[in-house]
Amino acid sequence: MSRYWSDIVHRLTPYVPGEQPVVAHPVKLNTNENPYPPSPRVLEAIQKELSGAGESLRRYPDPTARKLRETVAAYHGIRAEQVFVGNGSDEVLALTFQALLKHDAPLLFPDITYSFYPTYARLFDVDYRTIALDDSFAIKVDDYTAPNGGVLFPNPNAPTGRPLPLADIERLVAKNTESVVVIDEAYVDFGAESAITLIDRYPNLLVIQTVSKSRSLAGMRVGFAFGNPELIDALNRVKDSFNSYPLDRLAQVAAVAAYEDDAWFRDNCARVIASRERLAAGLTALGFEVVPSAANLLFARHEGYDAATLVARLRDKEIFVRHFKAARIDQHLRISVGTDAECDILLDALRDIFGAYVG
Amino acid sequence: MSRYWSDIVHRLTPYVPGEQPVVAHPVKLNTNENPYPPSPRVLEAIQKELSGAGESLRRYPDPTARKLRETVAAYHGIRAEQVFVGNGSDEVLALTFQALLKHDAPLLFPDITYSFYPTYARLFDVDYRTIALDDSFAIKVDDYTAPNGGVLFPNPNAPTGRPLPLADIERLVAKNTESVVVIDEAYVDFGAESAITLIDRYPNLLVIQTVSKSRSLAGMRVGFAFGNPELIDALNRVKDSFNSYPLDRLAQVAAVAAYEDDAWFRDNCARVIASRERLAAGLTALGFEVVPSAANLLFARHEGYDAATLVARLRDKEIFVRHFKAARIDQHLRISVGTDAECDILLDALRDIFGAYVG
Repeated sequence: MSRYWSDIVHRLTPYVPGEQPVVAHPVKLNTNENPYPPSPRVLEAIQKELSGAGESLRRYPDPTARKLRETVAAYHGIRAEQVFVGNGSDEVLALTFQALLKHDAPLLFPDITYSFYPTYARLFDVDYRTIALDDSFAIKVDDYTAPNGGVLFPNPNAPTGRPLPLADIERLVAKNTESVVVIDEAYVDFGAESAITLIDRYPNLLVIQTVSKSRSLAGMRVGFAFGNPELIDALNRVKDSFNSYPLDRLAQVAAVAAYEDDAWFRDNCARVIASRERLAAGLTALGFEVVPSAANLLFARHEGYDAATLVARLRDKEIFVRHFKAARIDQHLRISVGTDAECDILLDALRDIFGAYVG
Repeated sequence: MSRYWSDIVHRLTPYVPGEQPVVAHPVKLNTNENPYPPSPRVLEAIQKELSGAGESLRRYPDPTARKLRETVAAYHGIRAEQVFVGNGSDEVLALTFQALLKHDAPLLFPDITYSFYPTYARLFDVDYRTIALDDSFAIKVDDYTAPNGGVLFPNPNAPTGRPLPLADIERLVAKNTESVVVIDEAYVDFGAESAITLIDRYPNLLVIQTVSKSRSLAGMRVGFAFGNPELIDALNRVKDSFNSYPLDRLAQVAAVAAYEDDAWFRDNCARVIASRERLAAGLTALGFEVVPSAANLLFARHEGYDAATLVARLRDKEIFVRHFKAARIDQHLRISVGTDAECDILLDALRDIFGAYVG
């Protein structure tokens, strides 16, 4: 508390990101990073930008990230003016709250979802109502029919990984025409269907994606929004009132190169999906109940063991998974899908903790 | 205009950054970039981060930029908890408006100053009043005595380059104890005195800096705020409600390395200062009236020639300078200090435009 703070600062509940372990060789399955490095073309593109003794770094980057928008637009078969670029999808989400989701009627999002959403709502003083997932943690789009100032959820949902069929999303978007429906597709490339294919037909649909997960570039901070130019224009107006140059030169060329190597992207997604199914089977064999996932994470609980205790015991072994002290999910672990070797270390550790080899 | 836009979007007047020329070899003196490249250590640090086939890029960066804050704190002889890091000083300024400058009483800033300030104020609905510079474009700190919710100005001021003595700033900060005084030191390293030396004594003082100008890293987007931990805490609370990871991995290591090569920094600042004085003499010889500058830019007018016309004629020659269509300054050019060779091309072009060799 301070007299110097603006009022809003006193009312915030800042988001707490997953722990960054300081041990030498952590098994880090707590922030949904990709277990495989980015495409070699990403490295080549960065090296090219650094040529001439880094001469280009003294220059401002392109404030509009034109090349990147054009590349990603071509990739998705849309136009560059349907693409907004931000400093990670978290920044894109923040600007979306400010530009498109602040209205008299409340924003609707699930009770169990990305925990940053209520934080954004408080920062921008956006009224919101949460809608309960069903008992299987599924989003029922027909629950989102109340008058609203926007609808927002991830597909697949966080932290569950549970996907929603595209037909359900289209039904919602077709009905909810008076406000924007935002689909946060951070995890979509691991088995769900993107709603980008719908943006030409629905001016009220905004789709958000990131290079952090499926393109192995969490370290470079690049995210996107896709939608009607009228929605993109709102985001640009807010962005250009906040920070003209959100993406540095190396982030822009890195993201372009990541989209130019589609084989690398597809191969890694396939490997992560295979490891996910293998890990899900291993956890199930150990007695875990695992939510069906189309993301690079599994959300699982074990009737016999307290989740917080499990997290602490794993942490002692330098294995990091995520746990949320929140209603309905405080007995779940959220486990990022690592390499098969990392998943095996986790499964072995759990067997060890459970005190007996199972299966 | 759109029913999907939040109300605030309709009221914005987005900032317009300086033009990014698309010609092959522009003489680019319009965005105050450093004419010299960053330290070779910056390149080495980025290369080191990229080792192992860019393996680290798949990991999120440190959300707190601890190493960078520690490095810069040690450089300035302060503590890491007195340092906030953001995605360029424009983002730091934006977060400062939201976290520390929104109060019932109006924010005060000069009528002629960084043109992004009113844009931020509109975005965050911050009431403000402008205080006129005197006829020599000097800030008179004793004009900032009205009840206020904050005081903000650059030192040296933009777009004039005119510096203010540190004693004046201290007098203001010592008197204006009920709200925060923000000194935007984007250009301070080219000849003005930093107020960082005062932050231990004044809990109401926030100093903002950037690596974009004096450390030749405009392309990497890193800015800072320095102040009492209570002020820094407000910025962190807002930042962690907006975007947890604003600085990518390469930006963090690049900025650390830039602070570790102090000789490179000092040499380049000295060269820019020498070129500025040489260019000022050249412009004066051509009949320009030049505002005394402690920045890497000159603000100059010529009684005989319309500024907008001069800008257009220079642009025809692929020489880019900045012009603001604003009251009191629409007959001025803002000219970034380039290499001596670039400054000579500008002076020759002006002579050419004036139709006769002068001097």
